[in-house]
Amino acid sequence: MHSFSELSILFESNFSNRQFPEQPATLYDAAQYILTIGGKRVRPIVVLMGNELFGEIHKDAFQVAKAIELFHNFSLIHDDIMDKAPLRRGMETVHIKHGESTALLAGDAMLVVAYEQLIGIDSKYSNQVLTLFSKTAKEVCEGQQIDMDFEKMDNVSLDQYIEMIALKTSVLLAASLQMGSIIGGANENDQQHIYQFGKNLGIAFQLQDDYLDAFGDPEKFGKQIGGDIIANKKTCLLIRALEVSNPSQKIDLISLLQTNDDKKVEKVLDIFRACEVGEFTHTLKEKYFDSAMNHLDQIEVNKESKSQLLALAKYLLMRDS
Amino acid sequence: MHSFSELSILFESNFSNRQFPEQPATLYDAAQYILTIGGKRVRPIVVLMGNELFGEIHKDAFQVAKAIELFHNFSLIHDDIMDKAPLRRGMETVHIKHGESTALLAGDAMLVVAYEQLIGIDSKYSNQVLTLFSKTAKEVCEGQQIDMDFEKMDNVSLDQYIEMIALKTSVLLAASLQMGSIIGGANENDQQHIYQFGKNLGIAFQLQDDYLDAFGDPEKFGKQIGGDIIANKKTCLLIRALEVSNPSQKIDLISLLQTNDDKKVEKVLDIFRACEVGEFTHTLKEKYFDSAMNHLDQIEVNKESKSQLLALAKYLLMRDS
Repeated sequence: MHSFSELSILFESNFSNRQFPEQPATLYDAAQYILTIGGKRVRPIVVLMGNELFGEIHKDAFQVAKAIELFHNFSLIHDDIMDKAPLRRGMETVHIKHGESTALLAGDAMLVVAYEQLIGIDSKYSNQVLTLFSKTAKEVCEGQQIDMDFEKMDNVSLDQYIEMIALKTSVLLAASLQMGSIIGGANENDQQHIYQFGKNLGIAFQLQDDYLDAFGDPEKFGKQIGGDIIANKKTCLLIRALEVSNPSQKIDLISLLQTNDDKKVEKVLDIFRACEVGEFTHTLKEKYFDSAMNHLDQIEVNKESKSQLLALAKYLLMRDS
Repeated sequence: MHSFSELSILFESNFSNRQFPEQPATLYDAAQYILTIGGKRVRPIVVLMGNELFGEIHKDAFQVAKAIELFHNFSLIHDDIMDKAPLRRGMETVHIKHGESTALLAGDAMLVVAYEQLIGIDSKYSNQVLTLFSKTAKEVCEGQQIDMDFEKMDNVSLDQYIEMIALKTSVLLAASLQMGSIIGGANENDQQHIYQFGKNLGIAFQLQDDYLDAFGDPEKFGKQIGGDIIANKKTCLLIRALEVSNPSQKIDLISLLQTNDDKKVEKVLDIFRACEVGEFTHTLKEKYFDSAMNHLDQIEVNKESKSQLLALAKYLLMRDS
């Protein structure tokens, strides 16, 4: 079994070359640009891990890993256009650097190139992989749309929120693992467990992200604390606070959402603390993490083989043991 | 052999249902909307014609036809965003009706649904069809990018222009025909001829469109005469005029491009007439039409079978005989 960092080196050696034709350079330089500004490559690496859990890594797993990373970057380019985001990983976003029209097209071309990676894999599983990839791609679009819809809704339930983050962020991780496992020869049962492992882990990770935005250590978090609060983002924290706050807290919270005063973050955090939404979110995250672990346990391979996936899960959820 | 209108009825009976999931409605209603505002469905119909030229229409041809029409509409949604177009077929464009972000995502989801149509076809040709589809999809993106690049270039050669229109508009028609022929069981040679038939026909059609924008009968053309001139679009007419005009005409033409005066269209048309670019474009169109006919001739099926493709070609190029 290879570690994440070993697989990362293997993947990059395959991925650091230009992934697109040379011409028209205006189009494909924009597409290549986002691939060069980094990223942890978690999704493609877990394709390889999903494969290796069941057998030696097949060259098709690298094709699928590439497809997944290209798809992920396609969605980042288009999301950044929608969010009018100026920066990604500390660098200019594609639409800022290359213009919106080119960014839109570069995303489109990248999605097609992602599919091209999948078309060449062994016909014994290409249909299943292409079907899962397409289902997941649609779900990611749906998740993004539902997230945008939430901005216009007064009431979002926690169930709706979990469904949205599952679609927007978790199903791609889950599908990456399952695709790797398909190539590795996993049976249907193990495929479902590895998918659910990834899906639950992804939800736990997003809940942790919500928590850290409010209560994280600014040194370690790497993003501005309170960014979600300033943007009135309907996170698990806010949704729960709106549910459990008493009438006076609720009035304060709703009126704070309509302000932009300097103390907004601080005042919202006070209400979050009073409503114990941090604890709630932490507990919910643990629940999804435990569920992920439970699915990992049920995969019918020896325990030793699972060590790298376990290590990755613990790393992502910042757990020492 | 079925006529265009017979195939059109067959296709619509298959395509008029909703092509997308119900939920999230905000996303998929936007996608469905563009399918309901019409379109001649030329590309999907020629998939069926390409099939029928070589054998009975197989149900897979309907899948491919759907994929092609979905792809075409995906590209229209995204092109309209890029062009900031308010109207499409006399109706609000998707981004005007549903907002830019939703239009962008609806296009993305539509591209994925197009691929889904192709994934289920018979494995004996699915790889070839998926490969051709992906190559073509990339080329359409490239054509759109090159068209945008032209807006910023002072000099565009006629060869560059023909290459651009081939990518932006003709290769999809060509690929539609070839995909149909693949399903019909055409050999490699016939596949290449039907592809080239479609490609040359598409170029001839675009050249005709350039011509009609300047010299068409306003009653018949259906678009505003001079629209390309007002937009300074680098059409065959303008490119040729810039090439062959004498120094004084060229100075006038270039200065007209920088104005928006009421007489702009009239004055540019005067120069176009003096430079005989209408005749040139007409002759070039005929050359591509003849080349299309030549490729159609070379397809090794009996002449009678080709009558519907011939009729379509003549209809598109507005020829009575």
